[in-house]
Amino acid sequence: MTLNFITGNPGKLREAKSILGDVENIDLDLPEIQELDPQKVITEKLKEATKNHEGEFFIEDTSIYLQGLNGFPGPLIKWLLQSLGTEGIANLIKKYDNHKATAKTVIGYSNGKDIHFFVGEINGTIVQPRGDNDFGWDPIFQPEGYDKTFAEMSTEEKNAISHRKKAMIKFKEFLDQHQ
Amino acid sequence: MTLNFITGNPGKLREAKSILGDVENIDLDLPEIQELDPQKVITEKLKEATKNHEGEFFIEDTSIYLQGLNGFPGPLIKWLLQSLGTEGIANLIKKYDNHKATAKTVIGYSNGKDIHFFVGEINGTIVQPRGDNDFGWDPIFQPEGYDKTFAEMSTEEKNAISHRKKAMIKFKEFLDQHQ
Repeated sequence: MTLNFITGNPGKLREAKSILGDVENIDLDLPEIQELDPQKVITEKLKEATKNHEGEFFIEDTSIYLQGLNGFPGPLIKWLLQSLGTEGIANLIKKYDNHKATAKTVIGYSNGKDIHFFVGEINGTIVQPRGDNDFGWDPIFQPEGYDKTFAEMSTEEKNAISHRKKAMIKFKEFLDQHQ
Repeated sequence: MTLNFITGNPGKLREAKSILGDVENIDLDLPEIQELDPQKVITEKLKEATKNHEGEFFIEDTSIYLQGLNGFPGPLIKWLLQSLGTEGIANLIKKYDNHKATAKTVIGYSNGKDIHFFVGEINGTIVQPRGDNDFGWDPIFQPEGYDKTFAEMSTEEKNAISHRKKAMIKFKEFLDQHQ
């Protein structure tokens, strides 16, 4: 059965193919529900996808948890970023004592019957924007133990340690065991 | 044709009946999509409702725009409130120079063919929580020209000036002209 990655992002598709091998792409415009729990966001999307399509699907959702804000915004990061920009978020967090953050990728996989989740996380600190990569919040996230932000790293450097990569590898291990 | 208010909130239903007269209640659990534009959130809900039900429907969405945060969080206020509480939001806004906020209710009405929107707004200031009413962000919103927060006002006082009441009255004027 074909394994379909539901994404509109060519970079994520490339990464998934490099780890998982044979992956097809399907770009469905699925509504994202308002939730702080990424598993709920993903579950609704997978239900919607399996209504109209047959096969195996996976989807990923990346969220960020700011300790100063008690974990807000989680999966709602894209809206905070749209309102404040990377610099606005960095300035906001600077006003708090705790600058720590966790980036998390959740992959949800549906074989048409069950849904399985695979989680990858990385801890870091929110800093003033550095690096000219303008991929989301990469310029303000500095992983623990590194002196570069994600935006200052090469794609290879970032992918070697990233939350998304960790989730992908767990997903691959699951697939290897079940195929 | 029956006019159905989609809500699970008895207080809002009572207020709607007192202004609009003959209103039926239908409590559908419709997904809220992630959007900063309340009209998009409402449109998706009304589409979902009219898929499975016949008749006239309306729904309301209340959002809050914090000037210090460039208008964030809008309709996402419930999640910011869930993470930080009223005191956490007040403390966050205190860190900025601009404490102004606008509360907005959008009512979306579908007659089965078209969707019409009615907007009510009120400006105010975010203050430390006052008043023992624990309805959402009422304890931290002090309307312009008043020295009480919404939570310190009686229901009558609040309803006389509120964003929701203003939207309801515009909606009533529209219905009166079209029936």
